[in-house]
Amino acid sequence: MKRIAILGSTGSIGTSALAVVDTHPDRLQVVALAAGNNVPVFASQVRKYAPRAVALASEQGLQALRRLTEVPAAFACGAEGLVAVATHPDVDVLLCASSGTAALEAVLAAIACGKTIALANKEVLVMAGGLVMEAARRHGVAILPVDSEHNAIHQCLHGRTSGEVRRLILTASGGPFRGRTRESLAHVTAADALRHPTWQMGQKITIDSATLMNKGLEVIEAHWLFGLPASRIDVVVHPQSVVHSMVEFMDGSVIAQMGLTDMRLPIQYAFSYPERWDAPVPFLDFARMGTLTFEEPAWDDFRCLDLAYNALEADRSLPIVLNAANEIAVASFLQGALGFTAIPELIARTMDAHRAGPAETLDEVRRIDRWARAYAADAVRELQSR
Amino acid sequence: MKRIAILGSTGSIGTSALAVVDTHPDRLQVVALAAGNNVPVFASQVRKYAPRAVALASEQGLQALRRLTEVPAAFACGAEGLVAVATHPDVDVLLCASSGTAALEAVLAAIACGKTIALANKEVLVMAGGLVMEAARRHGVAILPVDSEHNAIHQCLHGRTSGEVRRLILTASGGPFRGRTRESLAHVTAADALRHPTWQMGQKITIDSATLMNKGLEVIEAHWLFGLPASRIDVVVHPQSVVHSMVEFMDGSVIAQMGLTDMRLPIQYAFSYPERWDAPVPFLDFARMGTLTFEEPAWDDFRCLDLAYNALEADRSLPIVLNAANEIAVASFLQGALGFTAIPELIARTMDAHRAGPAETLDEVRRIDRWARAYAADAVRELQSR
Repeated sequence: MKRIAILGSTGSIGTSALAVVDTHPDRLQVVALAAGNNVPVFASQVRKYAPRAVALASEQGLQALRRLTEVPAAFACGAEGLVAVATHPDVDVLLCASSGTAALEAVLAAIACGKTIALANKEVLVMAGGLVMEAARRHGVAILPVDSEHNAIHQCLHGRTSGEVRRLILTASGGPFRGRTRESLAHVTAADALRHPTWQMGQKITIDSATLMNKGLEVIEAHWLFGLPASRIDVVVHPQSVVHSMVEFMDGSVIAQMGLTDMRLPIQYAFSYPERWDAPVPFLDFARMGTLTFEEPAWDDFRCLDLAYNALEADRSLPIVLNAANEIAVASFLQGALGFTAIPELIARTMDAHRAGPAETLDEVRRIDRWARAYAADAVRELQSR
Repeated sequence: MKRIAILGSTGSIGTSALAVVDTHPDRLQVVALAAGNNVPVFASQVRKYAPRAVALASEQGLQALRRLTEVPAAFACGAEGLVAVATHPDVDVLLCASSGTAALEAVLAAIACGKTIALANKEVLVMAGGLVMEAARRHGVAILPVDSEHNAIHQCLHGRTSGEVRRLILTASGGPFRGRTRESLAHVTAADALRHPTWQMGQKITIDSATLMNKGLEVIEAHWLFGLPASRIDVVVHPQSVVHSMVEFMDGSVIAQMGLTDMRLPIQYAFSYPERWDAPVPFLDFARMGTLTFEEPAWDDFRCLDLAYNALEADRSLPIVLNAANEIAVASFLQGALGFTAIPELIARTMDAHRAGPAETLDEVRRIDRWARAYAADAVRELQSR
């Protein structure tokens, strides 16, 4: 029996993870749950799984929860709550599926307690990949990626060393605007961008997928997870999203992982690893799959991908700036305060304004993150006031 | 330094294997070579690699070789020659690439001497898979498949156990007659059938590819190599031959191996295993690869595939009959003595006439093989005399 904690239990990944738990009640047990502000859904989860520890973003959330259901003795809110859930002594595997940067401290705390980490939060590695992977090595903790691309690469590598690898090939759906030029993208709306062709995801990641920043962040994550430089991580556009990613070995052989576009697959893989369990989803039907195609990304039309490579090649601090500026840019775009093609412009401007500095501690990471958010937010206001 | 013996050094696989040796002269050394009757090519190989043991099919061949080049002290001909080359004390890895059944005894002898076997000869496992795999287990010998499909599956499994596997998925190009009906195939000629769309191979295997018998024999091989029943080995037609085969795991994840259609890749993999070495061929270019498609085999139009499944599901003796009758049928077709659609008819007729019996020893295997060849040859003569 593996005992699971979930940060972000009411989100898309969190609810898929609970569906995996429901498929394997003899193998998985939920012992701690944390969510943000979605109290009604969280209350039903607390009733169903009876976790030993819970956390919500705010004290008001906890009070609202208490009105809807019985709350266990171990409860907390905010950053403290995330840490309490992540480090609860009964937890074997922490699934970090809360979006944004709040989970970073909780993940580091869980690593220090020896918990296995199933990682679905991009920001943790983009902001502090060095810190996190060094801590994982020090404590002998496995970081199992839940992102479908990194999960695919983990499966393709299956214990092979990076010395045998020529390059990692991340596949990208290309998003809803694949094939469109930069000029034609200037006036697309948030509603246009939220129509993703193959994956059902949250708003932030869907916009990141439309700009290709999602793939850029994944390149940075892949660097930290698999220990390869940017020059040995490639992106190929594969609109059908059947091949989730690939590893090209030095002898010319390519190993690819394929599957349905359903997050329950990589979540279950991370929970079951090193075993595999019965499928939580239907099997691929090759005879009915249609054609698979591959193409080069349109680097010039989707500049976010290039910005991410630039950030990764620079130093540990620039990816933090990239990520923070992107969060501000996407939020502004969703609010209608920024155009689609202004997203990479805002990020590039913030990256240009950044002065490289140490990013070796959580405090330093947070300081750079705060600076970049403030700078990007100011830049958005300035653009609006014109 | 791995010391290599090759049975079938002048054939398509043999010459590709020597090209791999040429790419890695610091890692591979040729110590023994055997060929059939192609004395001029064999003489140049003997001059170039100076093997310590050689064998040719006949005494005349050896005499002709002696006129062309210096012959080492260890030489022999016929079945004895194959065994001498395969079991030479200096050999670490035996590449069995001679076609037909002659190599079976030599492979069993090499296994008994503890040699690693790189296996490119289909008949060895189709005729005596049980015998060979049991001997390999007993002597702790690895059987590394060189056939691109089985090599792909070996790479996809990479040490995972068959308990995690739902099914193996062998890809098939579909051959030159993909999409044609049985009726339209009645009058195709050997020349038509020898135009294979993606692989350059010998005549026998090219005809087997056109009838899909090649895939049927591969299903039987896969059964022995990977220990799965016929019901868990599937075939999917993939005309581009980029995906060389796949493994579907019980959790719904599919691992595929891709590469160029160049036999140097799987040969090098078998020589380098468990390492990987620098590529002997160019890398796949995903952006220029075009589309990949998958479809169900046309079972009713290409009956050989079904016959192979039937043989595998019956007992150990029926695959021997299938293989022997197929060799006679293909030879007769190449000589113009048998129509293309009469190939499966002849095989089915021979299989129907066979009475199941033990196939637990090399002698029993040979007896069944001889009976089936004689029966099929008689049947061809009978058809011709009508």
